[in-house]
Amino acid sequence: MKIAVDAMGGDNAPSAVVEGAVLAYQELGIETILTGIPERIDSELSRLGARGLPLEIRGAEQIIEMGESPSRALKSKPNSSMRVAAEAVKKGDASAVFSAGDTGGAFAVSLHVLRRMKGVLRPAIAALIPTLKGFCIMLDVGANLVPKAQHLFQFGVMGQIYSELALEVTKPTVGLLNVGGEDSKGTDAIRSAHELFSKSDLNFMGNVEGSTIFQGSVDVIVCDGFSGNVALKVSESLSEMLTTLLREEVTHSVRSKIGYMFLQNGLKSMRKRTDYSEYGAAPLLGLDGLCTIGHGRSNPKAVKNALKATSRLVEKQLTGKIEGEIDRHLSVQRSTEAGWRLWSQIREGIFQGGSSDQPAAGDEPSGEDETNLIKK
Amino acid sequence: MKIAVDAMGGDNAPSAVVEGAVLAYQELGIETILTGIPERIDSELSRLGARGLPLEIRGAEQIIEMGESPSRALKSKPNSSMRVAAEAVKKGDASAVFSAGDTGGAFAVSLHVLRRMKGVLRPAIAALIPTLKGFCIMLDVGANLVPKAQHLFQFGVMGQIYSELALEVTKPTVGLLNVGGEDSKGTDAIRSAHELFSKSDLNFMGNVEGSTIFQGSVDVIVCDGFSGNVALKVSESLSEMLTTLLREEVTHSVRSKIGYMFLQNGLKSMRKRTDYSEYGAAPLLGLDGLCTIGHGRSNPKAVKNALKATSRLVEKQLTGKIEGEIDRHLSVQRSTEAGWRLWSQIREGIFQGGSSDQPAAGDEPSGEDETNLIKK
Repeated sequence: MKIAVDAMGGDNAPSAVVEGAVLAYQELGIETILTGIPERIDSELSRLGARGLPLEIRGAEQIIEMGESPSRALKSKPNSSMRVAAEAVKKGDASAVFSAGDTGGAFAVSLHVLRRMKGVLRPAIAALIPTLKGFCIMLDVGANLVPKAQHLFQFGVMGQIYSELALEVTKPTVGLLNVGGEDSKGTDAIRSAHELFSKSDLNFMGNVEGSTIFQGSVDVIVCDGFSGNVALKVSESLSEMLTTLLREEVTHSVRSKIGYMFLQNGLKSMRKRTDYSEYGAAPLLGLDGLCTIGHGRSNPKAVKNALKATSRLVEKQLTGKIEGEIDRHLSVQRSTEAGWRLWSQIREGIFQGGSSDQPAAGDEPSGEDETNLIKK
Repeated sequence: MKIAVDAMGGDNAPSAVVEGAVLAYQELGIETILTGIPERIDSELSRLGARGLPLEIRGAEQIIEMGESPSRALKSKPNSSMRVAAEAVKKGDASAVFSAGDTGGAFAVSLHVLRRMKGVLRPAIAALIPTLKGFCIMLDVGANLVPKAQHLFQFGVMGQIYSELALEVTKPTVGLLNVGGEDSKGTDAIRSAHELFSKSDLNFMGNVEGSTIFQGSVDVIVCDGFSGNVALKVSESLSEMLTTLLREEVTHSVRSKIGYMFLQNGLKSMRKRTDYSEYGAAPLLGLDGLCTIGHGRSNPKAVKNALKATSRLVEKQLTGKIEGEIDRHLSVQRSTEAGWRLWSQIREGIFQGGSSDQPAAGDEPSGEDETNLIKK
């Protein structure tokens, strides 16, 4: 098994990415294909004394920059390091692709190269969130800003599989992010999604509010990409603010300073428990091939951890399992719809009246591949 | 000036609310009209030895419960403590109404009794958020789940005035909560709102991401009620989680325990800086009268602080100032539109072709009073 690595993606690329790949090989035996400008990758390998390692370099002339328009990058940079990495998966040379580059760019390129998985309406980005009980998975965190009910439902299906494999939870619980606990709360899409979840055999716990995310009350939190993105970024930012405030407070008195010194190990350990860079990569779920995204600020250790997480997801056959589950749920929905149609016909025969309470069928996969993220 | 207080609203009502009102009178000279079940309010006053104070009790038989459907509460409880309090404002007996009860219920009742302010399309709930630089205002945090561009723009106008008065900022900066900094990011409504803000004379700073909220980069953050609600609740929940984790970590070693003890004053002071109950009440902006909402868990001190903040907003004429600003912006928009129409006509005369690039006019206030919050 090999992982294609976008060596030029991320704030500290290529140095941190190449070093992470070297660590992943040395410590974990993970083989990688490093894509990007050969001389730059080669000089990093030299710096690390790692030119003898069996890491392949695959040339790519262009780099998708952080914050670049994903759709423009896709068109104007046909030979980007991200593109070459995704194509290594498409060709079967690698089992997965990893990038610490721009999420929008990586998403647009992988969707273009790998395409959507059969049956999946909208791929989603899943993030691992630390909670009081361990971790939970939140999706979507940025790919689909205004998903429909059926999209949200599929996020739940995909998130459940990811949670089973990544967190080793059996029968993970699924919650729908909402502004209140009652079934009637939320937008039309959320209320319809609530219905779809309730009718399914997923371990659905109903609505969860922003205030319960960190309590770890559910394993999978389903949300639209807009509020998921906001929630994720708000929590990163708040942890940083609290750390800064704490540091400010302790400089006020000698007593506090002493306390802070004594407490540093505890604080470090707490930060570790809530530090995203410790815990692998965010997978793009619903593509026909595995793509994982690391934090833009990833250091070598974070890249190594991300590659470890990615290789585990390959071993555990995340993609194949999601495809099977999506297919199973679609079959169930189709047979339920067929049942409703039959029942309507019978009723029409008896009462001579139509039925208006057929459940929403959800939209079928369309040819249109664009999500909100790459339209921009 | 008197403030009508929904004495039965909140988790600790009526005891915490009545005690807060007593403190507000004793310490700050704020006069209140306490609405609710007279015997229960009276017995609280007796308990506090405050029966002699000039606090009016106004009877109301019903109580809107936490989590109760706002629309149902509005219909089935015509004599609720919240309703009687809002009516005291309508009648001119009080200058503002305060409740620590269910936000949805308080919103529905005030909107029904006080009505929307002239020119305002959608009232919004504004929250005060602690940042590294002090405070910022975020709105909407729950009343409008899917606002249109013009609604978001008006949130900015109202938030700006509130920020000037509550935070004493001159020419407050306004940001639009989004998933990225670029103008092209976000939903259609957000992109159109971005255009409206850019054309206005507000001190608009463009998009802000979830990660910048706590840095205090802008004074007013405009967002839809769904993601605003999620952001607010996520941040409350995360602070609590971090405190719990810290407490867990310190029990691991004697060294840490000592550190925690030394640090307690610092931690307390930090908590104080980030504790919502320290800082007044969240106003409902855009009603024809002032209504403020306190945290459901408000203790007497929080109620007192909320009444202090409310009385200041009355003194500073928040409602009148918002009305003036909304009116001014509507006039500017109308004259711009008139200009565009004239220009279109001239161009049509010259080129014999229509103009298609007239800016969106935004919808006019309709008779429909329902927001997403009270539809449920």
